[in-house]
Amino acid sequence: MNYRMIANILGWLMIFESLFMAVPALTALIYLESAFWPFFGTAMFCLAAGVLITRKKPQNTTLYSREGFVIVSLSWIVLSLFGAVPFVLTGTIPSFVDALFEAVSGFSTTGATVINDVESVPRSILMWRSFTHWVGGMGVLVFIMAFLPLSGGQNMHIMKAESPGPSVSKLVPHVRTTAMLLYSIYFVLTLVMFVTLIVFGMDPFEALNTAFATGGTGGMGVKNASMGGYSPQIQIVVTVFMVLFAINFNSYFFLIHAKFREIFTTEVITFLAIAVTSSAVIAFNINGIYGNMGDSVRHSAFTVASIMSTTGFSTEDFNLWPELSRSLIVMLMFVGGCAGSTSGGIKVSRIIILFKSMRKELGVLIHPKQVKKINVDGHPIEHEVVRSVNVYMVGYVLIFAVSMMVLSFDNMDLITNFTAVASAMNNVGPGLELAGPASNFSIFSEPVKLVLIFDMLAGRLELFPILLLFSPATWKK
Amino acid sequence: MNYRMIANILGWLMIFESLFMAVPALTALIYLESAFWPFFGTAMFCLAAGVLITRKKPQNTTLYSREGFVIVSLSWIVLSLFGAVPFVLTGTIPSFVDALFEAVSGFSTTGATVINDVESVPRSILMWRSFTHWVGGMGVLVFIMAFLPLSGGQNMHIMKAESPGPSVSKLVPHVRTTAMLLYSIYFVLTLVMFVTLIVFGMDPFEALNTAFATGGTGGMGVKNASMGGYSPQIQIVVTVFMVLFAINFNSYFFLIHAKFREIFTTEVITFLAIAVTSSAVIAFNINGIYGNMGDSVRHSAFTVASIMSTTGFSTEDFNLWPELSRSLIVMLMFVGGCAGSTSGGIKVSRIIILFKSMRKELGVLIHPKQVKKINVDGHPIEHEVVRSVNVYMVGYVLIFAVSMMVLSFDNMDLITNFTAVASAMNNVGPGLELAGPASNFSIFSEPVKLVLIFDMLAGRLELFPILLLFSPATWKK
Repeated sequence: MNYRMIANILGWLMIFESLFMAVPALTALIYLESAFWPFFGTAMFCLAAGVLITRKKPQNTTLYSREGFVIVSLSWIVLSLFGAVPFVLTGTIPSFVDALFEAVSGFSTTGATVINDVESVPRSILMWRSFTHWVGGMGVLVFIMAFLPLSGGQNMHIMKAESPGPSVSKLVPHVRTTAMLLYSIYFVLTLVMFVTLIVFGMDPFEALNTAFATGGTGGMGVKNASMGGYSPQIQIVVTVFMVLFAINFNSYFFLIHAKFREIFTTEVITFLAIAVTSSAVIAFNINGIYGNMGDSVRHSAFTVASIMSTTGFSTEDFNLWPELSRSLIVMLMFVGGCAGSTSGGIKVSRIIILFKSMRKELGVLIHPKQVKKINVDGHPIEHEVVRSVNVYMVGYVLIFAVSMMVLSFDNMDLITNFTAVASAMNNVGPGLELAGPASNFSIFSEPVKLVLIFDMLAGRLELFPILLLFSPATWKK
Repeated sequence: MNYRMIANILGWLMIFESLFMAVPALTALIYLESAFWPFFGTAMFCLAAGVLITRKKPQNTTLYSREGFVIVSLSWIVLSLFGAVPFVLTGTIPSFVDALFEAVSGFSTTGATVINDVESVPRSILMWRSFTHWVGGMGVLVFIMAFLPLSGGQNMHIMKAESPGPSVSKLVPHVRTTAMLLYSIYFVLTLVMFVTLIVFGMDPFEALNTAFATGGTGGMGVKNASMGGYSPQIQIVVTVFMVLFAINFNSYFFLIHAKFREIFTTEVITFLAIAVTSSAVIAFNINGIYGNMGDSVRHSAFTVASIMSTTGFSTEDFNLWPELSRSLIVMLMFVGGCAGSTSGGIKVSRIIILFKSMRKELGVLIHPKQVKKINVDGHPIEHEVVRSVNVYMVGYVLIFAVSMMVLSFDNMDLITNFTAVASAMNNVGPGLELAGPASNFSIFSEPVKLVLIFDMLAGRLELFPILLLFSPATWKK
């Protein structure tokens, strides 16, 4: 294990975190909030520590696969630990575990909160929450890699460990250029959303927060009613952008390069088909509540987009909807969006691979000597990818079960527990019942919050990096 | 596809079913019930049809893997279809879908019922329900194979498809002898239980029913209060036998042959460890309700044994227990018992393989070139077994999700839906809330009952045989 190199990258991470904190610090300056000092202080500490650590360059810069995983998981833990400090120092969230929950929920783009009344919180704090979503959405190490001079192979190990989806495709030969390209698309899409929201009459501060929180598909809002208080037009705009941020960013790359055939992959088409079908079913199901199809479709489409993209915004309290809609919503939490987007969940591409591998295995039972590869969009899927998807599912179920077990010690109802874990592991935000859109996660005990923190990180990093931290083999010579 | 041979075996199945029906017919004669005629009539029909079909011997008796799967799934469907007829003809369950539900629940050893008041039902009907459990527990084709002259290789295909657990081990070189051995152990254990129950003061009719229902780990009782009305001594006897029937029958074979080392396999030890730990946790959790540790331990041990063995008997309405106990019970439904026993669920051995394969795959992420096999009890587990366990899990989750979706159209609460599906797929019997021990499955609509029928069969046959029925590749030339 190349500890020097790991420390070096963690040092760079702290320097970047201090830069990230400039955003809320600036917000505090603009709105003359005393919260400036906590942000400034934490940023200065991170900067100083980062500079100190990175001053000594490691002689051996080789990184292997396992270092890639360790760097990614440690980076997210360090990022969250320091990201939590301003919440405590400003007095917004006095308990450190609560503050850590909020920070991890932010960076992992979950969007679950422990704050009861977000409208009473300093604007700089709100900005920090939204901005953590934006940073976490595309991946903080992908961002650093776009600037840090590492060799290509080393970048790839880190990118593989941090990027969502069953496999990483390089759009261009260089990993660094790919990272820059993805961030450019991300930046432009967020900017377009920000401008559109202002055009439709949203206050600029709220528009910026909403754009950040939607971009990262996080979902922490600046209003207690989430998106419920805004005009139908604004809700529709947010719906469209939640869908856009849940689509594989590769599609936008191909759009720019006018490769129209490659935009609508099987995954994108399946994602859209599930979204449209679910919206239709829910719209009919809730039409009795809203009385007219216009409102029903708007609320159902918003909710489906919010849940599938794992943003977690809400216009209505879907916890009060009929059981069919509630069940569908819970299932969509697990589906999530496309690989290579900022969304969470299991991802549509994984589900496609799971279905196809099931069909193939059934075939093997009939013709035991048959050797076939699975194809998606005409490309064969490597056996390693299929196997890792299968193992991902198994690990997912096991972590889910253990988490449920710990949550049940809080003695809340099963639906609250189940949907809270589902919401955390899929980085959605709200669940049902006591974890529903009208409530928040402050009701849980500290051990449960620690489990949910673990689940959010494991979900965002797609299990393996976090699980490897606990494997003795990782730390062996 | 060797249709002649499939038809031939299905013919034999019908002959055997007519013999099975002699048990309730005889019961009806003893208790002078008019239900004799429906049983006698159905049995005669099955016998006549069976004899007619089997009269013409197929010239080509070769069976391949796919015929094995098709025979197993069709056999269970035919068995259930005719097994349902007496319920309708006696007027006990007028609707055929309901009767089919009862028959499938019986043969699959689930034990969920649609009968509101079992105490008002003819004794022959009660006997038929218990006896279907006993027949289904060890596998009806395994039973037929013990008598039918098929070649060894052909038997193996059928045994593989019908036997529970990730892989089939032959105790002795001949499959037929293995089948006979297993049935002898099964018969003796059931007999010992029957005698023990009588010794502890149970009425002989009830003792025979209870022994059949416990032997198959089915759980349909002869009292509305399930095992609630019996003495603590009898409840303890049933607890012990539920555990015994959930242990791999190979262990008893080794016990007889004094190979004491091989009795306590990793699976058996893990099973017992989970059972003891869970019982202890639940006992403490419910101690507030019962006031003394003796009663708490008795009820918790009974419930854990009942759920893990997937019998489904109850002494108390565990739906009313605290959330921690409820959550634990739901999770134990999925665990189930040991492979090679009559219990359902995912099986402890599969869970062990899943854990070990996860650990191995994590190792592969660190050392990509490492090639290692998983070991259980010092024996390497073949890659095919590991892969099929992984695919089993994926198929399990997919069927579960689709079933949940259909159930939610009935507009019951999520816990009812979730635990009803869990209970059906794991062949347990009761779930929670409206599917809890105090209720029954008559509340569900017919489409939902059909889905649950599918789930019970899929669960009992461990997915593949039933799934293959729907695969075009199975029917291709």
